[in-house]
Amino acid sequence: MTHLNAASSAFLEALAADLPADSLRQPEPRYLEEPRGRHQGQAAAIALPRSVQEVSSILRRAHHARVPVVPYGGGTGLVGGQVSSEGPLPLLLSLGRMKAIRGIYPQENVLIVEAGAILADVQAAAEGADRLFPLSLAAEGTAQIGGNLATNAGGVNVLRYGNTRDLCLGLEAVLPNGEIWNGLTRLRKDNTGYDLRNLLIGSEGTLGVITAAALKLAPRPRHQGTALLVVPSPEAAIDLLALARDLIGEGISAFELIHKQGLQFVADHLPDIRQPFDTAPEWCVLLDLGLPEGRDPESDLITLFEQAMERDLVSDGVIAQSLTQSQEIWSLREHIPEANKHVGSIASHDISVPISLIPDFITRAGMALAKLGDMRINCFGHLGDGNLHYNVFPAKGRSRDDYAPLRGEISRVVHDLVADCEGSFSAEHGVGRLKVGELERYGDPVKLAAMRAIKQALDPHGILNPGAVLRAG
Amino acid sequence: MTHLNAASSAFLEALAADLPADSLRQPEPRYLEEPRGRHQGQAAAIALPRSVQEVSSILRRAHHARVPVVPYGGGTGLVGGQVSSEGPLPLLLSLGRMKAIRGIYPQENVLIVEAGAILADVQAAAEGADRLFPLSLAAEGTAQIGGNLATNAGGVNVLRYGNTRDLCLGLEAVLPNGEIWNGLTRLRKDNTGYDLRNLLIGSEGTLGVITAAALKLAPRPRHQGTALLVVPSPEAAIDLLALARDLIGEGISAFELIHKQGLQFVADHLPDIRQPFDTAPEWCVLLDLGLPEGRDPESDLITLFEQAMERDLVSDGVIAQSLTQSQEIWSLREHIPEANKHVGSIASHDISVPISLIPDFITRAGMALAKLGDMRINCFGHLGDGNLHYNVFPAKGRSRDDYAPLRGEISRVVHDLVADCEGSFSAEHGVGRLKVGELERYGDPVKLAAMRAIKQALDPHGILNPGAVLRAG
Repeated sequence: MTHLNAASSAFLEALAADLPADSLRQPEPRYLEEPRGRHQGQAAAIALPRSVQEVSSILRRAHHARVPVVPYGGGTGLVGGQVSSEGPLPLLLSLGRMKAIRGIYPQENVLIVEAGAILADVQAAAEGADRLFPLSLAAEGTAQIGGNLATNAGGVNVLRYGNTRDLCLGLEAVLPNGEIWNGLTRLRKDNTGYDLRNLLIGSEGTLGVITAAALKLAPRPRHQGTALLVVPSPEAAIDLLALARDLIGEGISAFELIHKQGLQFVADHLPDIRQPFDTAPEWCVLLDLGLPEGRDPESDLITLFEQAMERDLVSDGVIAQSLTQSQEIWSLREHIPEANKHVGSIASHDISVPISLIPDFITRAGMALAKLGDMRINCFGHLGDGNLHYNVFPAKGRSRDDYAPLRGEISRVVHDLVADCEGSFSAEHGVGRLKVGELERYGDPVKLAAMRAIKQALDPHGILNPGAVLRAG
Repeated sequence: MTHLNAASSAFLEALAADLPADSLRQPEPRYLEEPRGRHQGQAAAIALPRSVQEVSSILRRAHHARVPVVPYGGGTGLVGGQVSSEGPLPLLLSLGRMKAIRGIYPQENVLIVEAGAILADVQAAAEGADRLFPLSLAAEGTAQIGGNLATNAGGVNVLRYGNTRDLCLGLEAVLPNGEIWNGLTRLRKDNTGYDLRNLLIGSEGTLGVITAAALKLAPRPRHQGTALLVVPSPEAAIDLLALARDLIGEGISAFELIHKQGLQFVADHLPDIRQPFDTAPEWCVLLDLGLPEGRDPESDLITLFEQAMERDLVSDGVIAQSLTQSQEIWSLREHIPEANKHVGSIASHDISVPISLIPDFITRAGMALAKLGDMRINCFGHLGDGNLHYNVFPAKGRSRDDYAPLRGEISRVVHDLVADCEGSFSAEHGVGRLKVGELERYGDPVKLAAMRAIKQALDPHGILNPGAVLRAG
């Protein structure tokens, strides 16, 4: 990588001359804050282009001036990919003004949208055409689809519909040199050259700026069914998933594992959230079905519950009798991250391991952490994908600051164990700036060398999101 | 790209010394033949390694000596990606000895297999674990899974299960410099860096040699249903697909359009293949269902047929009453390519367009070709994916040689029209060597420049499959 220059006043003035009047401004503080408060960002200005041509002008000038550019979506990323605190002062690039739905093709199950559209608005646009855009995650009211693509976001429906990567057919993007790639195809099959689309998806704004996407829609399930089932163990939860798949086929949209600790945090800090059980069970599973016309999810869930009871895979449970009850169950699941915030974690881990190794991982991680001290663990997440949020909290009555000296060791223990299970230290949140060291430690060295070669090839001056994913040169 | 050297005797001797005794030999003629006889290949020798380490030794030496290496799978590719006839004499690299199933994980729906395994053997291994590996295509008895991955093969089940790309979780591969990338993960979610897996998949052996893959399995459908339905037009076929999706949900595994011309070619040249209709209908659709326990495909197909009759979407049809009848219907579909071979096409096109534009494309292409002369068109394929095999044949009583002067123009007309519909000139077969010019003509220039930069970054000497996908430097 070559030497980068700060975004100077001269640079900003020249850039302002390229763009309409109100395209550059001082960034509001929210653009410089990392959601979990891990570090403070810096930026000379924020650019707010209205078109792919304007994004191209910005990158072209930054490329020639060797000025760092940090792309900013909804700002909900949890690994610092959107917040730069080191190196020459960068330009922030928000796609927030590019939020048009460019087209909906219900017959093709395709929607074309600009990168700045809020995820919830994309979902609503699909629903307006009687279709489903299945990406669903806690931050959907703020997150932008461009950021979801840049980070290959996951969420609760991955089990059935895949990650964001799997929901994208084509991209329009601006490469680091300012060139516009028009890859906005609606095709299901196109084998004409290297897969630039998937290379940009998940590259966290380091290889190009996604400006629009052709997204896959799905038929809208006609009937939803939701259950919260008490399971004796994570092993039983995995067997329950297999049984559910045998009985219900592809209709299972979500399969979420919840630990007692999460329910207790919600009870302690969000007492208005309704809890379905008098005593929080050690483990439970949220199961969600979306079925076509002519199928009855409630009866499927009752059959599943009965067969699971016979096999000792569940001991208790509630099956939603109405949309309101379904929403109540989901609300409980969705408020766990907020309750976690109230408690204040020592360390959070967004890990995945092969599904069959999950029970073993949970046991071993609990034992290893117990040796380090008295802590509370809230382990929850997308069991069907092998993806757990493994978050570590202070013992009752103590503060996270008490554990500050242990924090590095805690994450090391968890991530070493993940590596031992051939798992991933970042299942759905990405690498950003917070996990660059983890990638260097746990990543395959040959893959890392290939990544550096690709970064150098597409962004020879290293202007795009320097320090994210790969250490700045 | 730098200058390449032919695989000399000195190079082969040094290579032989690195490898076990019988690892190098003269290639049998079949390794130098392109299946449609478009050109004749050349090679100094064929290497048959038994392990990823041996593949690494071969590429390391070729990289240092700047000797071209052409990876060879099952040899069934239709675009010349495996047959090199130009440039310094290359080394062929067959993965045929690396065909072990390394592991099956039914609980995780994962199978790990080496690249040289025959696709049909991979399907059988999955079935042995009561699972489905859904990739299915005419050449499955010969094609190797490594070649399927390198070309991102499609086939008849893409509608439901996706392309080969969508069926792969992880790869082991050797990069052009001989380094081994261990990316053989069984994880469903892993956001730790650039998507090297999808970059190698579909790169047709130009960026790395895939040596093993972790593949996704699916639950094995318990009940199959097959129908061949006569539709009045391609428009009606598209509406029929929408109706089928509404009624049957995700259970539709294949939806194939067949034109009268294909049925007639089969009747003329393969008279033993049973034809279900006395008079070949202008258009018909093969619909295949795979349903879980408790569902009855025959009754679903009858309901679909009745509702489609009411809406004038079908006029006649047969619904298989037994596995034998289902196989008979499939046999008819699967013998169309063989019948085509007997007739001898002037030009074949593996194209895709957005699904809603298919009827328009078929009409316009037919009119445009009629202006060029008297020809027969066999248009068939994977309608649900927007993918048609649009093959052009001589008029009855004439030979393909009569049309030789027209061949370039025919393909130009078809591909120009595809481009006008924002389609692809290679939906599932890839670029290989036969379509390099098409990629240069129709491909996005910014994407092409990015592809060349990536090729240069990962294969600076250009040793891997030179002349495939990108013109040799």
